[in-house]
Amino acid sequence: MNNENNLRTFLRLIAWRIVARWITKEGPKMNMPSINIQIIITLNSMHKGKTMSVQPVEISKAYRLLQVGSTTMISAKYDGVENVMSAAWVGLAGERKVVAYIGTQAFTRQLVEKSGYFVVQIPVVSQMATVLYAGGRSYADAPDKNDTIPFFYQPEFDLPLVAGCAGWLVCKVMPYPDIQQQHNLFMGDIVAAWSDDRVFRNGHWIFDDAPDELRTVHYVAGGQFYAIGKGSKFDHGPGQD
Amino acid sequence: MNNENNLRTFLRLIAWRIVARWITKEGPKMNMPSINIQIIITLNSMHKGKTMSVQPVEISKAYRLLQVGSTTMISAKYDGVENVMSAAWVGLAGERKVVAYIGTQAFTRQLVEKSGYFVVQIPVVSQMATVLYAGGRSYADAPDKNDTIPFFYQPEFDLPLVAGCAGWLVCKVMPYPDIQQQHNLFMGDIVAAWSDDRVFRNGHWIFDDAPDELRTVHYVAGGQFYAIGKGSKFDHGPGQD
Repeated sequence: MNNENNLRTFLRLIAWRIVARWITKEGPKMNMPSINIQIIITLNSMHKGKTMSVQPVEISKAYRLLQVGSTTMISAKYDGVENVMSAAWVGLAGERKVVAYIGTQAFTRQLVEKSGYFVVQIPVVSQMATVLYAGGRSYADAPDKNDTIPFFYQPEFDLPLVAGCAGWLVCKVMPYPDIQQQHNLFMGDIVAAWSDDRVFRNGHWIFDDAPDELRTVHYVAGGQFYAIGKGSKFDHGPGQD
Repeated sequence: MNNENNLRTFLRLIAWRIVARWITKEGPKMNMPSINIQIIITLNSMHKGKTMSVQPVEISKAYRLLQVGSTTMISAKYDGVENVMSAAWVGLAGERKVVAYIGTQAFTRQLVEKSGYFVVQIPVVSQMATVLYAGGRSYADAPDKNDTIPFFYQPEFDLPLVAGCAGWLVCKVMPYPDIQQQHNLFMGDIVAAWSDDRVFRNGHWIFDDAPDELRTVHYVAGGQFYAIGKGSKFDHGPGQD
């Protein structure tokens, strides 16, 4: 499984590099004046082969990846089709339960519905342009959308993870069709999680010790992001372990 | 209504000052070794009478108060009993829809169920100790809990708002009893919102221009908060208005 994944990652990176060169040379096919593909390619190229720092997170502490309240990216895969979207309305509803708003217009939604799984990932400062890019175009209109976004895979899960993020949570859809239909809310049970241990280690964020480009990003409106900032530690409060 | 509110606020502040003096002199009744009540009193005393900078926020832009992903405080009132709790699991499920996890152990829950309203407020750096305090004790065990937390009222809403926060969203409970019972989730329609316009103005956060003590706070675990940090502005992205 590991060799297969390595081979897949290797082939993906070669294909990605070819596409990236082609885009760089020809310019993007679609008219997306405000998005600078080159910036995304350059920034994402830093993450190639960086899966070595991805470490498992205990399920009981995975909620902490999300509790900081950052903007997320949601990925899914079904029948060989993989996609990633950006999502600001993703939160917790318990220590193992995720609530994600996935609108009907999102191509990713059908992949989630059909596969029964989605991945919530925590993007960082160096990925802000990628977050806007992934949120701004749909696979339905631009199936080449993911060519500039490097995915990797973890053993046992046939789900695309976006390289360069600070954390990843695999969520198994809890079937509540009424909530999905009426409110576009998908509830997920967290079944696996990983973090980049340069910034989240032993169940805790260590932003103040990590490079600033690994800080989480919090999108508000009108192109405005805020990175997570300075830490303050009290000697009491929930989640001491 | 305004005069009544002003009188109420005035009487509350006097009562609060008396209680604060008593606590300062006698020490807290309960054994709460790690919480320094004096710090909370001192910090909260800065917010007395500061309601002048509270300005209405357009309903269509109120979601931005929450989208930054901070830890929140939830307040409610029923039959003259007011309370506030801290809550990390509060998010958005649409541009006017809030989803708040309120566990069965929370005293505030019955106030929300009976009144049909709750307020989500966005606390800031100067309130971190208050967030831990409000989250660490229940009105059921300590009905004097709110004596150290200064409330104020806005016209037309008989709901306690915590002074010193950066934003307040009044949510009308959308009755989904199954979701409330099964998942402890309360969905709310945002019906009114205000912000401290020193830090959120014209529908936008202006953290980098405001005093650092007005930054939002994001609780993770083990007494660890992070304040919101540095802003980055792109020329594209949803929510341009």
